[in-house]
Amino acid sequence: MPGTAPSTLTVAVVGATGAVGRTMTQVLLEKRFPMTSLRLLASERSAGKSVAVPGWGDITVELATPDAFEGIDIALFSAGGGTSKELAPEAAGRGCTVIDNSSAWRMEPGIPLVVSQVNPDDLEAHEGIIANPNCSTMQLMPPMMALRDAVGIERMVVDTYQAVSGTGHKAIVELEEQVRAHAEGRPKVANVYPYPIGFNALPHIDVFLDNGYTKEEWKVVTESRKILHLPDLRVSCTAVRVPVFMSHSEAVHVETTAPITPDRARALFAAVPGVVVMDDPTNKVYPLAEQAAGSDLVFVGRVRQDPSIPDERGLAFWVVSDNLRKGAASNAVEIAEVLVERGWVASASRRGVGAGAGGRSGA
Amino acid sequence: MPGTAPSTLTVAVVGATGAVGRTMTQVLLEKRFPMTSLRLLASERSAGKSVAVPGWGDITVELATPDAFEGIDIALFSAGGGTSKELAPEAAGRGCTVIDNSSAWRMEPGIPLVVSQVNPDDLEAHEGIIANPNCSTMQLMPPMMALRDAVGIERMVVDTYQAVSGTGHKAIVELEEQVRAHAEGRPKVANVYPYPIGFNALPHIDVFLDNGYTKEEWKVVTESRKILHLPDLRVSCTAVRVPVFMSHSEAVHVETTAPITPDRARALFAAVPGVVVMDDPTNKVYPLAEQAAGSDLVFVGRVRQDPSIPDERGLAFWVVSDNLRKGAASNAVEIAEVLVERGWVASASRRGVGAGAGGRSGA
Repeated sequence: MPGTAPSTLTVAVVGATGAVGRTMTQVLLEKRFPMTSLRLLASERSAGKSVAVPGWGDITVELATPDAFEGIDIALFSAGGGTSKELAPEAAGRGCTVIDNSSAWRMEPGIPLVVSQVNPDDLEAHEGIIANPNCSTMQLMPPMMALRDAVGIERMVVDTYQAVSGTGHKAIVELEEQVRAHAEGRPKVANVYPYPIGFNALPHIDVFLDNGYTKEEWKVVTESRKILHLPDLRVSCTAVRVPVFMSHSEAVHVETTAPITPDRARALFAAVPGVVVMDDPTNKVYPLAEQAAGSDLVFVGRVRQDPSIPDERGLAFWVVSDNLRKGAASNAVEIAEVLVERGWVASASRRGVGAGAGGRSGA
Repeated sequence: MPGTAPSTLTVAVVGATGAVGRTMTQVLLEKRFPMTSLRLLASERSAGKSVAVPGWGDITVELATPDAFEGIDIALFSAGGGTSKELAPEAAGRGCTVIDNSSAWRMEPGIPLVVSQVNPDDLEAHEGIIANPNCSTMQLMPPMMALRDAVGIERMVVDTYQAVSGTGHKAIVELEEQVRAHAEGRPKVANVYPYPIGFNALPHIDVFLDNGYTKEEWKVVTESRKILHLPDLRVSCTAVRVPVFMSHSEAVHVETTAPITPDRARALFAAVPGVVVMDDPTNKVYPLAEQAAGSDLVFVGRVRQDPSIPDERGLAFWVVSDNLRKGAASNAVEIAEVLVERGWVASASRRGVGAGAGGRSGA
C-alpha cells in the first residue's frame, strides 16, 4: 500500500555549509528535485550566514534545532554523528523523513541502509530515519550486487585509495597548503591528519578498533553485509588516504560462488544503473580519480580473472567514484527520489505499514 | 666447497647516472663495501660525464661496452632490460659477476633471483648473472618468508601504493612540475605517465599482459614464487602509482596454512634481519612512505587478524620500504656482500661447482 507524495515538498539540508552539504544542495538543483521549498540548516558556527543558491536566491542558514524541522518533509543530514544522533529522532518525530550521511544510524536494526540502485526496497519500512552508507562502501555496492545476483559472492578483499575531500573542506585546504609548501621549499604542516598527507599514503582513516582494523575499514565489512543482505559475507579491507583531492579508488579482489569470466562480469556491471565500465587498458582506458570527479556514476575497470582463486571463481577489478557525489550527496538525493516516486516520504507507521514489518518488502 | 674472495675487488655500477645507479654508488660507500676500485659505466648519453664520489674524487663515466668489463669482479647493473640482455652475458663471460636490477633475467631458469635475507643460498649456483627482484616484490619477501617458515602460506593479495621514483628521475621531475603547476593554477602536463600522476591514482604500471594484469603485477606473482621456492603460491595483485615521491607502500592480505595470531606474526617479522615492526596504531605508530625514505629497512605495521579467513589463518598488514634502496640498490649491494663473505664472487663453474648443480645448496 504505497503512500502518496505531498504535492508540495519542503526539503532541508542539515550541515549545509560543509563539503557534503554543499554538494547535496548542488545535486538537488541539478536533478531538479521536486521541492517547493529549500531550507539550509547548520550549527551555531554557520547559522545566520547567507548562501547563494542558483535559482533560489540567497538563502539564510538557520540554526538546526528540534523545532526547526516542523514542516520539513525530507531532511538530508551531513552534520556529523553527534548531531544526527540528537536531531534525527527529533526531526522524525515531527514527521520529517531524515536521510542521514553520518555513521550514527547505519548499523541500527530497523534503519534502512540504502544504495539507491542496490536495495531501494529496503526503504519501504523506514520509520523516519534512513542511513546513507559510507563513501568507501557505497561505490563497491553496485558492482558487488551484480556479482551477488549472477554468481554469488563469498569473500571480497578491498584496498582503498581515498581522497582528502572525504575528510571535509579543511582537509582539501590542508593538502593545498602542503602542495604550496612543497613547491616553495617549506616544510609541510599537518593539522587535520596525524602526518602530512602530501606525498604520503596514510593507512589510518577514522579511529582504530580493538581488532586492529580502523572504523573506516570495518564500515566496509559491516555495511556491505547489511546492504547486500549477506550477513555472512567475508570481507577484508585496508583503507588508505592518498594525496588525491577528489574521488576514491578501490582495488577489489572477489571470490564468487559460481564461475565467472571477466567478459561476463563487464556485461553485468554495465547493466547496473549508474555504473559505467571503462575497461580497455591497452588503449589506456581505465577509471581515474580526477576524471570521475563531478560525476554521479561509479566507474569500473581493470576487470580480470584472479587466477589465485581456482575454477574461474576469482575476479579482480578497480572501482572509482566521486566520494562527495555518489559516495555521499548524490546517493542521498537518489534515496529521496525513490521515496517520492514510491510515495514513501512519510514513515512506514504513518503510512499504515506495521511497525514490525522491518526488512524487505514482498518484492 | 666455497671459493675465495679476491684480495682486491673492482666494482662497477652500470647505469651509474640513473636514479637506482646513483643510489647503488651511495650504498656501496655507506656500507663500506670492500672494493679497491670503483668504476661507473653508462650509455653513450652519459659516458664522459664526471661524477663526484665522496672519498673517491671525480670519476669519469665510461661507455658500457663488452670489453669495459675486463678486470671487473662485480658489476651492479641498473641500465634497463635491453642493456642487461646484451651486456650481462658479455660481462659474465669475462669473469665478472653481474647483479642485475632489470627484469631481463629474473625468471630465467638457473639464474638466482635473490632477496639478501630470504634466499641467499640460491646465490651459490650462480653462473655469473644474478637477478635483483622488482621493488614491489622485494619488500614483501622478508615478512612472507617468516610466515612461510612458521605456518605456511597459501595465498596473498597485494595492492600497492607505489612512488614515482620507481619510474626514474624523470618521473620525480614530472611530479615536481605538476605540483608547481597546481600551486600556480596551471594545468598539469603528463609526459612520463599516460595521465597526470599529481593528485591521481594510476592503476597502470608497466605494460598490460593478455590476462589483464600489468607486467608489474605479474612480477609480484612470479617473482614471489621463485624467491620463496613456492611454485604454486596463489597471488593476486593490483599495482597502483600514487603521488608519492619515495617509498612503496603495500596492503597485504595473507591466507596461511596453519593458524597464526597477530602477536606471533609481529614477533616473527621482528626477528627477520632488516625488518622493523612499527605497530602501535592507537599511538599513531605505523609505517609511512615519507618516513621510510632513505632507509634500507622494511617496515611492517597494521598487523591484524583477517576475520574473512576462518580458523585464524588470515592476516592483514601494511609494508613500506624505500623502493630505490631495499627495493633496488641496497639489496643488490647486500647480494654482493653475501658473495664476498661466502667466497662466491666467481661463478659456480669457475669455483668447480658442477654446472648442473643449479638450485639451492645442500643447506
